[in-house]
Amino acid sequence: MDLFNSTILKLEQKGIKIDDIAEITFDLQKSYINDLKIEHVKEEVINVIKKRESINAILTALLIDEVVEKNLADKDICKIISDDEGLYGVDEILALSIVNVHGSIALTNFGYLDKVKPGIIKKLDDLGKNKIHCTTFLDDIVCAIAASAASRLAHYNKKTT
Amino acid sequence: MDLFNSTILKLEQKGIKIDDIAEITFDLQKSYINDLKIEHVKEEVINVIKKRESINAILTALLIDEVVEKNLADKDICKIISDDEGLYGVDEILALSIVNVHGSIALTNFGYLDKVKPGIIKKLDDLGKNKIHCTTFLDDIVCAIAASAASRLAHYNKKTT
Amino acid sequence: MDLFNSTILKLEQKGIKIDDIAEITFDLQKSYINDLKIEHVKEEVINVIKKRESINAILTALLIDEVVEKNLADKDICKIISDDEGLYGVDEILALSIVNVHGSIALTNFGYLDKVKPGIIKKLDDLGKNKIHCTTFLDDIVCAIAASAASRLAHYNKKTT
Amino acid sequence: MDLFNSTILKLEQKGIKIDDIAEITFDLQKSYINDLKIEHVKEEVINVIKKRESINAILTALLIDEVVEKNLADKDICKIISDDEGLYGVDEILALSIVNVHGSIALTNFGYLDKVKPGIIKKLDDLGKNKIHCTTFLDDIVCAIAASAASRLAHYNKKTT
Repeated sequence: MDLFNSTILKLEQKGIKIDDIAEITFDLQKSYINDLKIEHVKEEVINVIKKRESINAILTALLIDEVVEKNLADKDICKIISDDEGLYGVDEILALSIVNVHGSIALTNFGYLDKVKPGIIKKLDDLGKNKIHCTTFLDDIVCAIAASAASRLAHYNKKTT
Repeated sequence: MDLFNSTILKLEQKGIKIDDIAEITFDLQKSYINDLKIEHVKEEVINVIKKRESINAILTALLIDEVVEKNLADKDICKIISDDEGLYGVDEILALSIVNVHGSIALTNFGYLDKVKPGIIKKLDDLGKNKIHCTTFLDDIVCAIAASAASRLAHYNKKTT
Repeated sequence: MDLFNSTILKLEQKGIKIDDIAEITFDLQKSYINDLKIEHVKEEVINVIKKRESINAILTALLIDEVVEKNLADKDICKIISDDEGLYGVDEILALSIVNVHGSIALTNFGYLDKVKPGIIKKLDDLGKNKIHCTTFLDDIVCAIAASAASRLAHYNKKTT
Repeated sequence: MDLFNSTILKLEQKGIKIDDIAEITFDLQKSYINDLKIEHVKEEVINVIKKRESINAILTALLIDEVVEKNLADKDICKIISDDEGLYGVDEILALSIVNVHGSIALTNFGYLDKVKPGIIKKLDDLGKNKIHCTTFLDDIVCAIAASAASRLAHYNKKTT
């Protein structure tokens, strides 16, 4: 299996489907784009994930969350990441490697999603808060993908209208 | 008058008071900090504006908005900035010079404020949309100051509890 | 004339040719890519400039430099920008709107060029230092374009080898 | 032991002393600051490391490098990180959580150090290239600390002269 498909599979194993992310992106853009089709949104979510920057960021985020969940590393940092304290910000920074390459529309939407936590993002956050799974990095990654797909739609729309 | 005081004065001349920004920051942080006092919030807003990075960013933003409003430069870019099209993102990037030095809490709050546009931010945005004044850069600057003050409060709170 | 061509023309009026930028990019990448052709480098410089983010950043940078050179705005900020003091960093931040969308190779090369100032970058810097022209924003823009083209070459090379 | 001291200790266990980082910072700033004292440089290196953002970033970087070195996670991402391919950029992004809070002087110096790799940075890079240890994230962290200390010195110098 190539890296893209194994990345999609790993996200699914964490309970995250393309459809879940596309729903969030759809809600971000529906008031800006007439006749927005969910199929088009899904395509752009896939286009975001296909990028090398995204695959690298997703797989690195999953590595960290898994190591922390299994307590395979230094106790201090495992506890800090697992608790996802407000002042731990490396998770947001890592997600920027996806967000930055998609421009400033991606950046503001990322911040918005990270605060509002719609749909699957809230579910991931709750899994982390209730210590069922470590999702400290993963929820920011989902925010980043959804926000970046929104930016792609905005750019695409501008070109065609 | 020193640079800090003349910066505060210039903001006031644009209809922006410390109180307006502090209100936005207060709303961002009130659910996280018990007994949050508006006086403490104002202090942190002032601490943000006092930083050299902030003064430089504020004065540069005001320069651009004023030049565009008076049409003193190249027509193409004046029109792009004045229209503040969705795909013009230099205003958000410039505001990052304030946001970045205040860490990732500032960054996510910045994105949130830029989408939701509470209080004075909406008023500034409307002045721009209705072509009464050019506020393309100024509204992002206010988002950046409010978001950065929120981050300072979060850090301060962590230290004292 | 469309925006891309008028942007190229404005750069030429400031004494900056595609060839000048391509030379800098060539030197950054020649040790990583076998048989690197200057024609290919020029193509990628053009691809960088064509992006909406780049055109917006270039035209905004030119607007600021020109207004400062002609002293058309607030004296305080005109002096700060004209002197390009070490602690004025809005110019580097603005250039990030080009750099960020090209990933982390662009980012490190940008920092490197900003310190080492090869070729046309040094010439622009000298024009500014000697108060012949205000080039505070323009030299960072050239660093950003050259660094981003280097990143595009690195990505392209990886795909074809 | 508190987090700061255990972070310093962990860096020493990887062969990185405050002195090694201070040497790099000293070389960055010596031509800008008269009578620069190495003791003052060391102080600022320590001030950078003391920040919560730095401690979080350092410990997270060490976690990733160690997990990859011991092959404790998904094979695909361990190989990508261990090889530190040119197009893997999450290491530079993670280091930005230190760099960003220190402003644009830190940013450009970071890019410069990442390209030139003086002193201990080169040693770390060689350990990685020769597969003796995984140092993919650690070398960027050292660049970030040295560059941020340089920025602190520049700001301090401006205030006192």
